[in-house]
Amino acid sequence: MRDVHFQRVTLIGIGLIGSSIARDMRAKGLAGEIVVSTRSAETLRRAEELHLGDRYTTDPRDAARGADLVIVSVPVGASGAVAEAIAPSLKAGAILTDVGSTKKSVIEQMAPHVPEGVHFIAGHPIAGTESSGPDAGFEGLFKDRWCILTPQNDTDPDALDKLTRFWQALGSMVDQMDPAHHDKVLAIVSHLPHIIAYNIVGTADDLETVTEGEVIKYSASGFRDFTRLAASDPTMWRDVCLHNKDAILEMLARFSEDLAYLQRAIRWGEGDKLFDLFSRTRAIRRSIIEAGQDVDAPDFGRHKIERKD
Amino acid sequence: MRDVHFQRVTLIGIGLIGSSIARDMRAKGLAGEIVVSTRSAETLRRAEELHLGDRYTTDPRDAARGADLVIVSVPVGASGAVAEAIAPSLKAGAILTDVGSTKKSVIEQMAPHVPEGVHFIAGHPIAGTESSGPDAGFEGLFKDRWCILTPQNDTDPDALDKLTRFWQALGSMVDQMDPAHHDKVLAIVSHLPHIIAYNIVGTADDLETVTEGEVIKYSASGFRDFTRLAASDPTMWRDVCLHNKDAILEMLARFSEDLAYLQRAIRWGEGDKLFDLFSRTRAIRRSIIEAGQDVDAPDFGRHKIERKD
Repeated sequence: MRDVHFQRVTLIGIGLIGSSIARDMRAKGLAGEIVVSTRSAETLRRAEELHLGDRYTTDPRDAARGADLVIVSVPVGASGAVAEAIAPSLKAGAILTDVGSTKKSVIEQMAPHVPEGVHFIAGHPIAGTESSGPDAGFEGLFKDRWCILTPQNDTDPDALDKLTRFWQALGSMVDQMDPAHHDKVLAIVSHLPHIIAYNIVGTADDLETVTEGEVIKYSASGFRDFTRLAASDPTMWRDVCLHNKDAILEMLARFSEDLAYLQRAIRWGEGDKLFDLFSRTRAIRRSIIEAGQDVDAPDFGRHKIERKD
Repeated sequence: MRDVHFQRVTLIGIGLIGSSIARDMRAKGLAGEIVVSTRSAETLRRAEELHLGDRYTTDPRDAARGADLVIVSVPVGASGAVAEAIAPSLKAGAILTDVGSTKKSVIEQMAPHVPEGVHFIAGHPIAGTESSGPDAGFEGLFKDRWCILTPQNDTDPDALDKLTRFWQALGSMVDQMDPAHHDKVLAIVSHLPHIIAYNIVGTADDLETVTEGEVIKYSASGFRDFTRLAASDPTMWRDVCLHNKDAILEMLARFSEDLAYLQRAIRWGEGDKLFDLFSRTRAIRRSIIEAGQDVDAPDFGRHKIERKD
């Protein structure tokens, strides 16, 4: 049941996100032709072994030529260089988008290079796992997940509509948002959690009084939940921190302030303050499950999986 | 295939941990008789509906009478009162243990009440989910999880051996540890992660610039991982904070110091420092999976579950 949305789609970058888009496009027949481009010859070869596209090249300019849709899925710090490289070969009427975790910086980096007549609409699918690379992608990654598009005032409504329907065909629900607001929302729901997770795992690794072996052995008591996020791609997250600095520093300041309050309550034995905070956070968990953004199986369903295997 | 370890086992407290012990004891026939006691008449009735025991009473003293093994599974702040209440009815030769998340405080609270001839050995199974109450327990919760016992110098070796074999029969691997060291280890692998999770969910809840609806919608990008821990029992966690204060404050101080370093690296755009930290934390995740303390399914296996349902 083919449902061709674009005659030629070019994927620049073929990691977790790029390769998941490729798999879904193939499965649903959304593209007449898929061109895959990535900087590393080794990764490109792997993409070819996985049959993710129809054509493969390490040259992004060559890859983008004649494409109806170009999707850039690279660490956000590389967005500008990619836009500059592909600009000369983008055809009039083409849609250019990305999947980066920060939007203000990506727009600032890419927009100046976009030729007249090309529709640049930045985007961000809120989906992923802790794994990276072309092998990590899978069909259905975007199903029931949100994709945020950040159109500008001069964005062509038809192009926006086409891109929206493309993401819907991948299974996503599509939202529109101002880029600066996107960066604030993501700073709290994604960037801060990752930074905190990296930080606590680093703290545990540095202790003199508790060995790494002990941390690993007893990690089921809470710590392991943080290690999943802290196993995410280091390059991607370095770039996120550097390219959403202001919003992240704002959220970090709030977090630290709240933590100091909690620390003081522990020091002074203020049980009521602790109980109040620990009670109101339960409600948010319930709302997330009701919204279909997590599963209700106890312990994330780990026991279910362990029993089955 | 019954394998009776104790003629009469009394469970004081029948929440997630107590009720899981009850279910496993029944399934494996580890106890001749199971006596269930809890303070709330409603919870006790529910335990009876679930057929978790053979006898039920809200009076702990009555419940402990004649028991060969008494397992106290209450919030750690209630340990002293329970020990005081049951002391007069504990029989000579009985083993008294607990499952609390802090050990120094529990020993300080309970030990003074333990009559001569009763073997008190504090313990802590490193297992659980975010759910609480008698309905939350299940068979197999302790399978392949560690249980830490914290015997003292004068602990009877036979009693220690009996309790060890009991936990092994529940599927656990048993370790021994000094109580103060236990409290330090747990402060980093469990208490700090929970406090951080509660704190970040609280911070998100308080923002003026990002709505709660947005936090919930986009939570799949990292935030939801923290909400599981932040949905844990508030009473239990208030007590943990109050009863492992010194170790928790020490770990919080280390964590905050490391976070300040990370914050500074973000502010000054020091990408190398960020990349270094974000790279070394991956190794710990791998070790945890190799040690069988987490599952390797991407995204904690959520996708696997979602596809199946």
